[in-house]
Amino acid sequence: MTAAPIILASGSAVRQRLLAEAGLTFTAEDSRVDEDALKAGFAQGEAGRHANPEAGTDALALALAEAKALAVSAKREGALVIGADQILSCEGRRYDKPKSMEEARANLLAFRGRTHILHSGLVIARDGAVVWNLTARATLTMRAFSEEFLDAYLGEVGERVMKSVGCYQLEGPGVQLFDRIEGDYFDILGLPMLPLLDELRRQGVVET
Amino acid sequence: MTAAPIILASGSAVRQRLLAEAGLTFTAEDSRVDEDALKAGFAQGEAGRHANPEAGTDALALALAEAKALAVSAKREGALVIGADQILSCEGRRYDKPKSMEEARANLLAFRGRTHILHSGLVIARDGAVVWNLTARATLTMRAFSEEFLDAYLGEVGERVMKSVGCYQLEGPGVQLFDRIEGDYFDILGLPMLPLLDELRRQGVVET
Repeated sequence: MTAAPIILASGSAVRQRLLAEAGLTFTAEDSRVDEDALKAGFAQGEAGRHANPEAGTDALALALAEAKALAVSAKREGALVIGADQILSCEGRRYDKPKSMEEARANLLAFRGRTHILHSGLVIARDGAVVWNLTARATLTMRAFSEEFLDAYLGEVGERVMKSVGCYQLEGPGVQLFDRIEGDYFDILGLPMLPLLDELRRQGVVET
Repeated sequence: MTAAPIILASGSAVRQRLLAEAGLTFTAEDSRVDEDALKAGFAQGEAGRHANPEAGTDALALALAEAKALAVSAKREGALVIGADQILSCEGRRYDKPKSMEEARANLLAFRGRTHILHSGLVIARDGAVVWNLTARATLTMRAFSEEFLDAYLGEVGERVMKSVGCYQLEGPGVQLFDRIEGDYFDILGLPMLPLLDELRRQGVVET
């Protein structure tokens, strides 16, 4: 079939791997949107807009995914551009990827013994307009690990801990941090693959 | 700590990878139990024993996991021996790993447009006795893919399709077979890691 090209508007290695493993033909292009500015702007306009903080975090993840998809779509006529974002919230507070080992340690202590939510936003844009979008949540509960365990964990994974907003990879020693994990594996990784593939089939760019 | 050694009574590459990625120190030892004979024996004794076929399949997965763990445990005094098994059922019928590409194709056509269940059994044995066990289920629904899609899929994955009871790997083109996946990622892979790690911590062989 002569299908529109697929572009992943993301520099994320995990998302690129998921699409490649699924057998899709695509290119990846970093959108270079200023996420910090978008988050700050979103926070300013947010007061009272969402009935609960979790709905607000869904909306923020979607807004960031949209900004990424639209930024790339504006430059790539006819392409289907996938934008994705993931935000972690724990008891109403949002967390970014840690910028240092100290911040990772502090975040993991904040998550310890508590439940956090991974909010994914997913958008497909074409010719500068959103044609499809989705939000998804996964809910993860960390166990009450000891500080000794935490230090051994951080020593083992090292700076890789800063690659993920939650400071863990489930395919790795990170699994030992958890008591309970509820949610789709792909939603945890930040790219809800099944609904995405469904829409890409509907758009005629993936075989049915 | 001077902990009992952990032995995985399985030749499964996926289960070995999961334990290794989690950071556990263990050895793997194939139990060499005759699974076909065990399944036949189980089927003979089964009539009327379980209120529904799914409960029967849970029990069979557990019986196989137990047989593997006990066979190795009898030879390895003091070790914690992990036995695991996974069985697929679709509309009341149980499926084994396909032994040929033709059988894989027939099974995938049987699963197409239907929901199947992956039943996991997990056992820890010590000194020839079961000390802990668990069953878990994951529920997966394949979409109504075309025969053209199926042939392209089989051509792409080749004989790897015979490595899994469901003829797919979700980390691969197999994800394109599905409409819906409900269940823990580790339960899908056939080794419920979170409850296993929890019990290994309780047994004092994994740090808390």
